[in-house]
Amino acid sequence: MKPGTTRSRPARPAEEDVSSRDQLMNAAASLMSERQSLDFSLSEIAQRSGLNSALVKYYFGNKDGLLLALVERDAAQASRDMEHLIGLEMQATQKLRLHIAAIINNFHRHPYLSRLLHVLLDDRLEDTKSVREIARFFVKPVVRCQREILRQGIASGEFKPTDPMLLYVSLLGACDHLFNARSSLRAAFGVQEITEELRAEYIAHVTDTFIAGLRRR
Amino acid sequence: MKPGTTRSRPARPAEEDVSSRDQLMNAAASLMSERQSLDFSLSEIAQRSGLNSALVKYYFGNKDGLLLALVERDAAQASRDMEHLIGLEMQATQKLRLHIAAIINNFHRHPYLSRLLHVLLDDRLEDTKSVREIARFFVKPVVRCQREILRQGIASGEFKPTDPMLLYVSLLGACDHLFNARSSLRAAFGVQEITEELRAEYIAHVTDTFIAGLRRR
Repeated sequence: MKPGTTRSRPARPAEEDVSSRDQLMNAAASLMSERQSLDFSLSEIAQRSGLNSALVKYYFGNKDGLLLALVERDAAQASRDMEHLIGLEMQATQKLRLHIAAIINNFHRHPYLSRLLHVLLDDRLEDTKSVREIARFFVKPVVRCQREILRQGIASGEFKPTDPMLLYVSLLGACDHLFNARSSLRAAFGVQEITEELRAEYIAHVTDTFIAGLRRR
Repeated sequence: MKPGTTRSRPARPAEEDVSSRDQLMNAAASLMSERQSLDFSLSEIAQRSGLNSALVKYYFGNKDGLLLALVERDAAQASRDMEHLIGLEMQATQKLRLHIAAIINNFHRHPYLSRLLHVLLDDRLEDTKSVREIARFFVKPVVRCQREILRQGIASGEFKPTDPMLLYVSLLGACDHLFNARSSLRAAFGVQEITEELRAEYIAHVTDTFIAGLRRR
């Protein structure tokens, strides 16, 4: 049964709905994080969550629907944090520092997120629901946050005028690549894992680079 | 028949070998560039090149072998250009400008390259030949070039001391993401294609950002 076929959907208490739905997403998140891979089967989800695998079809339609819902849940928290950040009484430079650290920490906290976004945003799927949905709940809130920080920083004289799109693409690419280039890191630099220390150094490096790039000379 | 089984490999004139091998790679490159996708069949390669699809097995073992050989051919030219750049009498800042433009132009010239590297460098394949090979002929020459430019720029006082690995990851991520984020660009910014103008603006933005980040204050 697919989501949206509400006519035949059995009545359930709302709390149970939320809880089973979240349990399935948690099971997928933990399997993908452990494996550093998007490969899992619906029966593995069932085993991990203790729920019937038919519930995946019931709540999400299919595995892609489950993955999309997971990205949406992760993005929803990030969006709330970004809205909060925009509203703070704080210099734009400092807001941008916190914003960049939050993006990198988000990729770190959800080790499947980088690859999942690459797969769900695949060009070949350009007209699918997943691209439109991810644009709505992931890309657009990040762009909005960066536009606001830029606007404030340009108005205050901290930043030079900068195209928000160029900033978005280069900054997201830099943040994402630490998690996407793991096999290059191993092969070319002998780095076996992204330690806390490396993550902190990377946040400082990306932050310093982009703030220097935005600064008025 | 697989490459390496030289005992049973029929004798052929070297020129013909080079030419058929290159024709198969050219056919793959043009199919992937047109489709903005890695999807093609061996029979499409045969049709496009006018050669028998069995030659793919003969020269490359399989489709992945063909893709790897294609990346290696693209990388070989880039490596020669980087060696040339390192040896020029020129300020490190200017070398870095040319290096960054070359990376972005390379991704642009080979529209399949970004996705192909993501697929071939997939973490799950960490022990495969493809990761080791790409590290050898793609990642390491770029790292070597950046190390040399950094070394020169730090010695001349143009750049502050910087970890080559942090620079590599952030810079490659920023360069690659323009070509990797096409569906985000469409969905969030209404950008339908990467025009010459956008590419030039992006090169200027990434160059200015990273040079500002490296500069001694």
